[in-house]
Amino acid sequence: MSKKIAVVLSGCGYLDGAEINETVFSLLALDQQNLKYDAFAPNIDTYHVINHQSGESTEESRNVLTEAARIVRGKIQDLENLNIDNYGALILPGGYGVAKNLSDFAFKGSAAKVLPALETVIRAFHQAKKPIGAICISPAIVARVLGEHSVKLTIGSDAETASEIEKCGAEHIQCSVQDVVVDSHHKIASTPAFMYDNARLTDIYKGISSCIEQVRIML
Amino acid sequence: MSKKIAVVLSGCGYLDGAEINETVFSLLALDQQNLKYDAFAPNIDTYHVINHQSGESTEESRNVLTEAARIVRGKIQDLENLNIDNYGALILPGGYGVAKNLSDFAFKGSAAKVLPALETVIRAFHQAKKPIGAICISPAIVARVLGEHSVKLTIGSDAETASEIEKCGAEHIQCSVQDVVVDSHHKIASTPAFMYDNARLTDIYKGISSCIEQVRIML
Repeated sequence: MSKKIAVVLSGCGYLDGAEINETVFSLLALDQQNLKYDAFAPNIDTYHVINHQSGESTEESRNVLTEAARIVRGKIQDLENLNIDNYGALILPGGYGVAKNLSDFAFKGSAAKVLPALETVIRAFHQAKKPIGAICISPAIVARVLGEHSVKLTIGSDAETASEIEKCGAEHIQCSVQDVVVDSHHKIASTPAFMYDNARLTDIYKGISSCIEQVRIML
Repeated sequence: MSKKIAVVLSGCGYLDGAEINETVFSLLALDQQNLKYDAFAPNIDTYHVINHQSGESTEESRNVLTEAARIVRGKIQDLENLNIDNYGALILPGGYGVAKNLSDFAFKGSAAKVLPALETVIRAFHQAKKPIGAICISPAIVARVLGEHSVKLTIGSDAETASEIEKCGAEHIQCSVQDVVVDSHHKIASTPAFMYDNARLTDIYKGISSCIEQVRIML
């Protein structure tokens, strides 16, 4: 019996939460490859709320779990309830939420602290030899948690972010937006997606679809 | 020179705004078919704000344009600025936002009032013989505006909604989630998407992709 896939979201909207397109593409690719999934997010406030039209931060307060629920039509659970025994793989879409809500990588780079509940989950999947698919900026937090194992991954070609990833002990490999980097030993597939700001949706979808395919192969 | 496509959004989140998956699938399908697009939304408050985890309405106030900006990474304009001369077709993704923000169809059915700026836009595209692609519940407002022309369209198989549409003068045609209904005389393509609540993303994507393809053929 094939196990479900756990997808961890960081809100709803790329500037303060999960990147919406990357999340939807991940779910579409999972469904197209006949992989069932459950979505999770932490029950915490977002680091801040950004007006996505002006790009400016607002006085509002929003909850990561409640906002992430918008993308998955309410079918989401508190990250604290993720029992890894029930899941065969972990998928982490990107967005600044990963670097602001799930960690403080946006502010501290290689010295970032990852949300303890997520750090536990990442370590558990890795230790159980269950694959992890990391999209966009998510490989940075995988590097922060698993850098001691010299994992190989990509965030595309951004030199500054790549350097922070390497400071964590991980090996950064350049990758185009349609492509995927696979560390078959550690079962980590990563793809840059919107790390290329102006990439076409078609290419981002190709990269994410390949990333999910590689995760499926490693199940 | 091929003209761009105008996509009109109604917020961000299916219970009080645009259905996120339908919107992203529309944009992906447009890009895959080499159609350039611009996104628009009205600069008005949402009818209400729903907590998408609990399904309950909150005391918050949010703006349709600002929230819709989350899906399209800030690349969005006020619906008032949509100059139809610059666009070859109109795409309307679904979500309750269409029936609560862009109209009051959710409350008044066939007696609904459509936001004047959108009514003007729908009439102008129709009059200019430019195709309209309507997804999920959006065909209901197309019916409300163009019902006098006996347009043919679908919202899937929901009898109550279909009946309200027919009261507007439109002809409702049953349609499965992967499929599309085309009124080639009036250049209207429609597909039910999440009108089938529990449909698979794969099938919704197929239906939306076909809808965009039919719009492209009628350009």
